[in-house]
Amino acid sequence: MTADYIKSVITTVADYPKPGIQFRDVTSLMQDSKAFGTCIDMLAEHYRHHQFDKIAGTEARGFIFGAPLAKALGCGFIPIRKFNKLPRPVLRQSYQLEYGEDVLEIHKDAVHSGEKILLLDDLLATGGTMLATIALVRQLGGLVEHAAFVVNLPDLGGADKLTEQGITCHALCEFEGD
Amino acid sequence: MTADYIKSVITTVADYPKPGIQFRDVTSLMQDSKAFGTCIDMLAEHYRHHQFDKIAGTEARGFIFGAPLAKALGCGFIPIRKFNKLPRPVLRQSYQLEYGEDVLEIHKDAVHSGEKILLLDDLLATGGTMLATIALVRQLGGLVEHAAFVVNLPDLGGADKLTEQGITCHALCEFEGD
Repeated sequence: MTADYIKSVITTVADYPKPGIQFRDVTSLMQDSKAFGTCIDMLAEHYRHHQFDKIAGTEARGFIFGAPLAKALGCGFIPIRKFNKLPRPVLRQSYQLEYGEDVLEIHKDAVHSGEKILLLDDLLATGGTMLATIALVRQLGGLVEHAAFVVNLPDLGGADKLTEQGITCHALCEFEGD
Repeated sequence: MTADYIKSVITTVADYPKPGIQFRDVTSLMQDSKAFGTCIDMLAEHYRHHQFDKIAGTEARGFIFGAPLAKALGCGFIPIRKFNKLPRPVLRQSYQLEYGEDVLEIHKDAVHSGEKILLLDDLLATGGTMLATIALVRQLGGLVEHAAFVVNLPDLGGADKLTEQGITCHALCEFEGD
């Protein structure tokens, strides 16, 4: 299985969420049993020799790929959530959107100091969400050196920003020209 | 592994989200690699002889249990999402909350007529979210006869409402007196 196969089962939605944006929609991939299983198997194979304690997935599509990967690798799963969704004490990190800002939260007991955490989201664009996630996990003493994605949009520069933070990125496919 | 083990790794948060509610928080379960893996294995074992085409999980905690179960059973995964989160044409179903109402949406191409769909959420309380999910999947021609949960709160009557809809419920554990 190749990156071309993964790309072939991702739907491109023109002008969503606004004119000029080509939205790369992974729901068509996850609806397809063969594609979804292959996707998780490819990620698990890539990280087979790492010893992660937990996988942190970002709300909400990061849950759909991160949780099966956690199961496949024998790790726990940490949900990184939007504002006011977690019931117990949290750390909070704000991050910039194109207009305004948003926040992400993590339970304070989600990471123990020294644990190795793999980050996972469906898509890497400018990297803002992932940088906020890295800050949260590191504030709790987690060791973060790897982040995985189904899709990378290299023209938006997210991978470069993560590299500056000491993160090695892995994506199953890329769409250029976005 | 028993229901008692699953219950022991679920955290109860008193007075959340409001006074008098004992919130059953499954994030402590999913953070624990052994408990999370066991939970998915127990669900997969229960449904091993069914031939589901897809699993539909409800935003957002339903994604965290439904997606690994889909992988384990070789099914596709359908995200049932809150308002305006899906990029392509949707069906929409409103449902009652304690105060006011909310809506759930499904992509119109998520289910093909005659497909067997297993429903999954983390917790069954009054059943309102699940009844809305059933309505969406059935409108698309999906066959729905089973719904799975990590936790059932039997005193809130959700399982009875689902039984009236011809649904067989399965939960890994129950908390009575809620």
